[in-house]
Amino acid sequence: MTPAHEQQVAAPEARDGVTALLERGRTMSTPVLRAAVDRLAPPMNTVAAYHFGWIDATGRPTDGDSGKAVRPALALMSAEAAGAAPEVGIPGAVAVELVHNFSLLHDDLMDGDEQRRHRDTVWKVHGPAQAILVGDALFALANEILLEVGTTDARRATKRLTTATRKLIDGQAQDISFEHRERVTVKECLEMEGNKTGALLACASSIGAVLGGADDATADALEAYGYHLGLAFQAVDDLLGIWGEPAVTGKQTWSDLRQRKKSLPVVAALAAKGAAAERLAELLAADAKNPEIGDFSEEEFADRAALIEEAGGREWTSQEARRQHATALDALRGVAMPEETRQNLFALADFVVVRER
Amino acid sequence: MTPAHEQQVAAPEARDGVTALLERGRTMSTPVLRAAVDRLAPPMNTVAAYHFGWIDATGRPTDGDSGKAVRPALALMSAEAAGAAPEVGIPGAVAVELVHNFSLLHDDLMDGDEQRRHRDTVWKVHGPAQAILVGDALFALANEILLEVGTTDARRATKRLTTATRKLIDGQAQDISFEHRERVTVKECLEMEGNKTGALLACASSIGAVLGGADDATADALEAYGYHLGLAFQAVDDLLGIWGEPAVTGKQTWSDLRQRKKSLPVVAALAAKGAAAERLAELLAADAKNPEIGDFSEEEFADRAALIEEAGGREWTSQEARRQHATALDALRGVAMPEETRQNLFALADFVVVRER
Repeated sequence: MTPAHEQQVAAPEARDGVTALLERGRTMSTPVLRAAVDRLAPPMNTVAAYHFGWIDATGRPTDGDSGKAVRPALALMSAEAAGAAPEVGIPGAVAVELVHNFSLLHDDLMDGDEQRRHRDTVWKVHGPAQAILVGDALFALANEILLEVGTTDARRATKRLTTATRKLIDGQAQDISFEHRERVTVKECLEMEGNKTGALLACASSIGAVLGGADDATADALEAYGYHLGLAFQAVDDLLGIWGEPAVTGKQTWSDLRQRKKSLPVVAALAAKGAAAERLAELLAADAKNPEIGDFSEEEFADRAALIEEAGGREWTSQEARRQHATALDALRGVAMPEETRQNLFALADFVVVRER
Repeated sequence: MTPAHEQQVAAPEARDGVTALLERGRTMSTPVLRAAVDRLAPPMNTVAAYHFGWIDATGRPTDGDSGKAVRPALALMSAEAAGAAPEVGIPGAVAVELVHNFSLLHDDLMDGDEQRRHRDTVWKVHGPAQAILVGDALFALANEILLEVGTTDARRATKRLTTATRKLIDGQAQDISFEHRERVTVKECLEMEGNKTGALLACASSIGAVLGGADDATADALEAYGYHLGLAFQAVDDLLGIWGEPAVTGKQTWSDLRQRKKSLPVVAALAAKGAAAERLAELLAADAKNPEIGDFSEEEFADRAALIEEAGGREWTSQEARRQHATALDALRGVAMPEETRQNLFALADFVVVRER
């Protein structure tokens, strides 16, 4: 079955446009990101290069998968939204990427995640101390890169990045606390995801404009676009975390179920009424006390996924992705910007909700 | 025997003056620091309050030992050095304390240290994830507090703090790498200590002046004072880490030897010529391969300490403390500032090299 959020497929030419936007963001920001990481003292530069997928665990250069690079693309489009050249957004793109990767390094360690982007995580390869230290270094570097721009607008940008980072940390704190709780409401889950994913996409979407001298109202509107885009992104991620194709996502089958994640489809299903929701609640309550969940068969996870779907958790999350997508586009109404940039921001939003990884 | 660095004892009235300066720094900055920490979402606010010694592990308020508070005192004096009111330095004092405590939270976890200031460390009480997370939050909060000041000078201050934080992280990286190496030179050890201790004291000593509008030359001179003060501070710390009185320092006897730290007295002793240095090198090389060092008797550690002293490591480190102290005072020559502030900075420098904890 095609999930509801994929029924709104972008036209092929629009997808090509998004590919070009992502590629541009990557091409323009990566050299600056690499130069920033090269500033780190050994062995932190090597550990960071491994994390970014530029070298393998033995130090050999790779042409590895460096992620979708949605954030750098947004930061450059954000500069254009303020009427500035895309280059103006580069320090913002790099700073946001550094903060994003700081959080990945620390979160993977806190969560005990052993794999990211088909590779062993930094703490698995280089040890917990390096994961902490290099995370810290990337965070510091993010501020350094932005403050080196030296303008009042750069100070405004740094302040927004700091606010976003604080929310990111709040989101991770909430996510950790959810693990120890039996029940999480849909509202709490959305708040956590808004902090953990929305805040930094909001920052990416506004930081280029701020660096380009946009006023606060424009920056706030772009931030709202990015925030809701982030929530749409996360809703899709939550769908892929259960029903995604492992060969495409790079994660295990039923990945979020294996990790007992209280993601949106799960909390939405548990909030529903009816036999499926009740049966799911019973199963998950038993699972929570069972350390052997890692040894469950494919069928056992498939049963849980079927109950989540039957209780409406999959459909609700698909609809939520579309609602957040629509709210993101709405946020751009009334903001004056070049028409091409507006269309690009629309196309990127479409891409975010219609993806398979 | 009175160590050489204590032969230069400050007069009692000067010590009273320093006590008052430290108390003023603590009194003026702590309420703002507490308000900043209160911004953290639960449970991070509680974990941070435990770390700062404001509450115990069960959440009850304490009137615990919150450290010497040299950094806040310096930040306020730094504002006065620029002719500003001490209050102008408060956001700087708070930001530096936040960065300092971010590094303590992460370092204690990376180093596996179970005790700090006579209490269990955060990772022991609240777990590794909270130590990482709350450290991150304090770092972000430091930038937030400074950037909220909103002036161009605050941007300059944030940039200096970011530079200092990067050095702090470099120093921790060096410290960790030293653990895995057989030999460390005196030069490498001083560079590590300059990064790990000097850089943040340098920032504390200049940040108030920057916030008060001082030019870069004045800020740089104050930074040099703080940097060498930090190296003097660390040299004394390294002496106390071996020969300190456990009841006063709050650490175990022979604390740094138990932890196999390649601190200044050790590397200076190993760099010396003669029978004691050779015997010490043999013992430490054997210790490095011995996981049972934790079970050594007091006598075994006392033997090593005696060899370090015989090889001249204790005397060299005492002299180094005095050299750095002199260089710190020299840095202030030629900087115009109120005479009282200059005397206060001198008195604080004396205090740093003549202390027992």
